[in-house]
Parts: sequence; C-alpha cells; structure tokens
Amino acid sequence: MQFQLHTTDTASAARAGTITTAHGVIETPIFMPVGTVGSVKGVSQQQLKDEVDAQIILGNTYHLYLRPGTGILEQAGGLHKFNGWDRPILTDSGGYQVFSLAANRKIKEEGVVFQSHIDGSRHLFTPENVMDTQRTIGADIIMAFDECPPYPSEYGYAKTSMELTHRWLARCVQHFNSTEPKYGYEQSLFPIVQGSTYKDLRRASAEFVAGMECDGNAIGGLSVGEPEEMMYEMCAHCCEFLPADKPRYLMGVGTPWNILENIALGIDMFDCVMPTRNGRNGMLFTTQGVINIRNKKWADDLSPIDQGLDCATSRFYTKAYLRHLFISSEILGLTIASIHNLAFYLHLVRQARQHILAGDYTTWKNSMIPILKQRL
Amino acid sequence: MQFQLHTTDTASAARAGTITTAHGVIETPIFMPVGTVGSVKGVSQQQLKDEVDAQIILGNTYHLYLRPGTGILEQAGGLHKFNGWDRPILTDSGGYQVFSLAANRKIKEEGVVFQSHIDGSRHLFTPENVMDTQRTIGADIIMAFDECPPYPSEYGYAKTSMELTHRWLARCVQHFNSTEPKYGYEQSLFPIVQGSTYKDLRRASAEFVAGMECDGNAIGGLSVGEPEEMMYEMCAHCCEFLPADKPRYLMGVGTPWNILENIALGIDMFDCVMPTRNGRNGMLFTTQGVINIRNKKWADDLSPIDQGLDCATSRFYTKAYLRHLFISSEILGLTIASIHNLAFYLHLVRQARQHILAGDYTTWKNSMIPILKQRL
Ligand SMILES: [Zn+2]
Ligand SMILES: [Zn+2]
Repeated sequence: MQFQLHTTDTASAARAGTITTAHGVIETPIFMPVGTVGSVKGVSQQQLKDEVDAQIILGNTYHLYLRPGTGILEQAGGLHKFNGWDRPILTDSGGYQVFSLAANRKIKEEGVVFQSHIDGSRHLFTPENVMDTQRTIGADIIMAFDECPPYPSEYGYAKTSMELTHRWLARCVQHFNSTEPKYGYEQSLFPIVQGSTYKDLRRASAEFVAGMECDGNAIGGLSVGEPEEMMYEMCAHCCEFLPADKPRYLMGVGTPWNILENIALGIDMFDCVMPTRNGRNGMLFTTQGVINIRNKKWADDLSPIDQGLDCATSRFYTKAYLRHLFISSEILGLTIASIHNLAFYLHLVRQARQHILAGDYTTWKNSMIPILKQRL
Repeated sequence: MQFQLHTTDTASAARAGTITTAHGVIETPIFMPVGTVGSVKGVSQQQLKDEVDAQIILGNTYHLYLRPGTGILEQAGGLHKFNGWDRPILTDSGGYQVFSLAANRKIKEEGVVFQSHIDGSRHLFTPENVMDTQRTIGADIIMAFDECPPYPSEYGYAKTSMELTHRWLARCVQHFNSTEPKYGYEQSLFPIVQGSTYKDLRRASAEFVAGMECDGNAIGGLSVGEPEEMMYEMCAHCCEFLPADKPRYLMGVGTPWNILENIALGIDMFDCVMPTRNGRNGMLFTTQGVINIRNKKWADDLSPIDQGLDCATSRFYTKAYLRHLFISSEILGLTIASIHNLAFYLHLVRQARQHILAGDYTTWKNSMIPILKQRL
C-alpha cells in the first residue's frame, strides 16, 4: 500500500491524498460504506459502483467469521471473489462486535472468549487468530485486535485496557509480519489508538501506535457517546502524534458535520453505519439539510430527493414517491434511502477533497455545516 | 392500443403477437411483474429495465387507491410519472383485493362497500368509480370491475356472481366509453371472463365478454385453488369463445410450467406475484430447475445463480453468496432473488415467443417442462 499526500490545508490540518492498494486507488479523504456480512445493507455491488461511487467498503470480521465462515471465504479466494466487490476492502478486527454483540465474553491476556449472538457457540479471538482470519478474508487493509472501552470509563480502567490493547497490538504486528497474504496480493495492517477520553493516555497510545511503523493508523474508541467537542479534542490530540505521511482512519464516525470537522483535524478515512441505518429509518442527509422522509410534508413533494448530487437514484426518485414507499413498507424504499445517503456521504468527501486541493477547505466547511445540519 | 398477431402455432393454440400502447410495444406472450403499490417489491425501476427487461408492469388499483391515493397520482400526472416507470402499465380493478384483503365487505348491486385493511376506513367501489380511479392512475390497460368467486363455488353462486359481473361489466364499458383519458394518451379497457369451474358458465361469460368488443380480454377466477388440469380445461374453453384477433390475458397465473401450458392454449399475457413472493422466500426458478437457496447444499456452490439467462444479476452472484445473504437476513438477498426470478420469467416468455415464431413451440414446451419442474 502506498500513501501519497498531495496537499495539506493552510488554515486547518485537512489533507488530500491517494492510497494505492492491490484493488485500486482511493482518493482521500474518503468515507467507507459498511458491508457488515459482505453486503452493504440493501445496496447491490453494481449500485455501490454506479450510484454511490464507493471506492472502498468495510467488512466486519466478527460477522464474516460467524457467517459465512472462513472456510467458504478461503474456497472462494477471499471476500472480493465471494461477494463480487473488486475494489478495496478494509476489515475491522472483530473486537468492537465481540464487546457489543457477543454474549458471556471473558477477556484474558490471551484474547477474548465469547459466545456467538446467533447460536450461542463458543469462540476465542486472539490477536494471532484475528490476523489469520483477516488474511483469509483477504482484506486490503486489516485492523489490529483491540479492546474498545465504553464511555465514560474510569481512568484506571481506560489505562489498563489501553495497555492490554498495546500488548495485543505487538502480538498482531508480530504475527502479521510472520505470515503471508493468502491470495498473492499485499495486505496492510493498521494499529488502533485507544485511551478513552484521557489526553495523556491518547498521547501515549498514539506514540505507541506510531512506533509500530505500519502503513496507516487508526483512532478507535471515539463516537461512543462522548460529547462532540470531546471527540474533536481527542481526535486532534491523537493526530498530533500520528505520522503525517501515513493515512489516518477515524473509526465509526459519524454525521456529515462530524466528518467535515474531523477532516479539518487531519483524518483521511471514515466509516459509519449511519448513512445506511438512518436511511432505513427514513432519515436522509441531503445537500440542503436533513429530511425525515416519513413526514407528511413530503407527501405531495414531487421534486427529486436531491438534485445537488451526481447520483442517478437521488435525481430520479421524488420525495413523494420515496415517502410513499416508506409509508407502504416497501423494501425499495430502504434501498433508495440507503443508496442516496451513501451517495451523499461520498459526494461530501469528494467535495471536501476538491476544496482542500483548491485551498479553501475551512471557509467551505464553515459555510456547509449549518446547511447540512438544518432540519427540512 | 393495437394488437398484431404474427404467428399461431400449428400444433397448439400458441400465438406470437405485438401489442402497441402509448408507452411502447409489448411482445407477446408476455409476463407482467406485479408492482403492487407502484413498486415491484425489492426491485428498482432501473433494474426492472436493465436486468429483468420487463416490458409492462401491473399496478393494484385497491392498493394505489388507498396509498398513495388518487390525489397525488393525479397531481403527478399519473402513475408513470409518480413512480418513474415510462413503459406500459396495466392496473387490475381492485375487485380481487377487495374480496381477499378488505374487511367487512358488502356486495350490493351498486358495488362493494368495504373497510381498508390498513386503517379500517370505509369505502365504496362501483364499476363507475373504479373506471375513474384507473383513468386517474393513468394505466395503459385498465380492467373491468368483477367479482372473483372462490374455489370451490356452488353452481348457483357461481352463476349469480357471473351475472353480477356481467351487469357490472356493462356499466364499466358504458362509463369507460363516456369518459376521456386524463393525460392525453389512450387507455384500453379489458373485460374479465368469470364462471368458476363450470364450462357452460365459462362459455356464456366468454361470449358475453367477447360481445363487448374491447381491445383485449381477460380470464379471471382461475389459479384460485382448483387442480391444474381443471385450470387448463377452463382456460382452453374460454379461449375458444374469445376473439383470436385480441390479446388474451390470464390473470394471476402462475408457475413457469403453468405459463408454458397456458401459452399453448392461446394466452398472450400473464401476471403473478409468484416470482417475487417465492423469491423473497428463497425459492428460485432457474433454467435448470427449482432451487431452495436456503438449503445447505448451496453453501459452498460458487457457480452463478443461473448462467442460462441474459441477466447480469443472475450471472454475477453465486449461489453460495445468495444463500449467505438469505441465512444472514440481508435485504440484498431479497432483491437478488426477485430480480433473478423475474428475469427468468421474462426469459421464459421470450423463449416461448421465439419457438412459436420458429414453429416448434409444442416440442420445445414438452421438453422444457420436466426440466423446469425438477427440484435441484
Ligand atoms: Zn493536543
Ligand atoms: Zn371447450
């Protein structure tokens, strides 16, 4: 994996760059749609390319490990072959889902024992076997196995947890470096900064992570319930100690305005379930503001969902028709809303990139945020 | 509407023709996907064109009347404008849903009083207002208001019901002829043959219907639980008394083999929820036979869903991936299965047409049916 940094904004830490992977080029800043079990919910692979213009998608190791399982993924030649997505894929480590979804989990030095949320079967995730699983999935970018402490966490817990994450990270790097890709193309490992909302822990973690000299670095444990200002403060503080010549990935963030603010702090990569999950609930992010498409006010609005996007779906369907599909519980409504929201997120980061390259990112961001936040 | 009959098979009553409507040409025999409330469940308008190659879709007057309602449909300029489907649309009369879905229905000479299955609100459908509603929906082909008796029905009930349907038909024709299309393009009315499973009633009804001299004719009240052989017998008997120079539409039928058999009897048009409904349950109709995609045997089958079709979706996704989506309750699975099944039905009627034109329809049909029926 190569990362080329083209421009850093003068009025902020925003950056425009290019990540080159074995499955193609990613222009940063970038948003990655979440494809939980190898499918971005409700959106076909063709729609992801043609309508959303996604450059990279995320897969969840926890989900893929349980279903369909690594056997068939290896038989297929990796997730790209299994799901037909031939552009880059990033997989998380499964840590987050083990802590949020699985039952009866027990954290030990070795790893985490847990029971599947699906059938109660018992499993053990270790730094080593999670590297192996992601090797088998065949993701272009794989994530270190970490513990993500909840918000709020006591200082003592946050510190102990961070230290465990660091010991696991060392084992991840060791195992990653001693194994080969399974399908002949390069995979890159990204370590994850933890440390909850404590600045000294965040710094210590960012320095530890930077010392691993991986191809890119991630910030985890934010957007877990803390106030937005605290997220920005922690993110900025982490970015100070993460190398500028490697991509920085802020995990699980967030709203459109969260993304613009964090880009200004030096983040290059984002993922979040919000565009698809909120879309399925009828909440649309648009170039004009936020829409609850179930609202009666859209019942006779025959204007397109969003004219401001270069997405055929957003321009083709009207608000009145989409509302009708939601009110009538039609599956197509979920698909249209998901495609639109994802296309909007990709549009937003493309616009951000253009303004970084043009040198007016901060002005543009400050003018956009009030528009994006307004409820229509 | 024009109907041009190109060929009638020598060994059967199968016909190849062309229906020309204001929204385009339909090559018959044809299958019409069901777009209940103005959306073919789970399939986008673009997918219906590009993947399924649907030439005409069906809308349900009962559903569209309740949601979104005729007000917004008229404001949009008709259903084509509202849902963005610019090819032909046929609407049923709402009769079937009033009898199968609505609550507390009361049949009177005037029409049917019923309560909405959604909110319990009270409504009256009459032959006249159902013509008006379909004028407002703007369908290219609109159906007469009829009563569809259940199977089995006593002779006396079937006769009384048929006679009511005939009186309603006369009122439909009268009202249809005394009203104008609302959006400047031609609409055609199709009357419906009833008579349950009684040959004398079916003949009387077909003769009455033929006497209306409409642009096309439909056969209703079949595929409602009677044995397949009885359906074929009734269908053949109706076709004897329906004019050969008008398209014949067999409503609500059926399996792929039902369609091939009824084509042989002289039917030109079909609709059925089976490809989408069964698709959503994981049942796939393919060129090789019937698949239950949830079956464990497909878990590691990395072959395409169906190579025998000219449908990008059926060729792109593997059985193993589609099974995984179903087992994981992913929406995309419903979409893929629906697209595939519809594409298969359209493929089947296209193949049928080619064999009618080539003069070997019966031989081809007899060789195909055992293949289509086999469980894989
Ligand atoms: Zn700082
Ligand atoms: Zn006969």
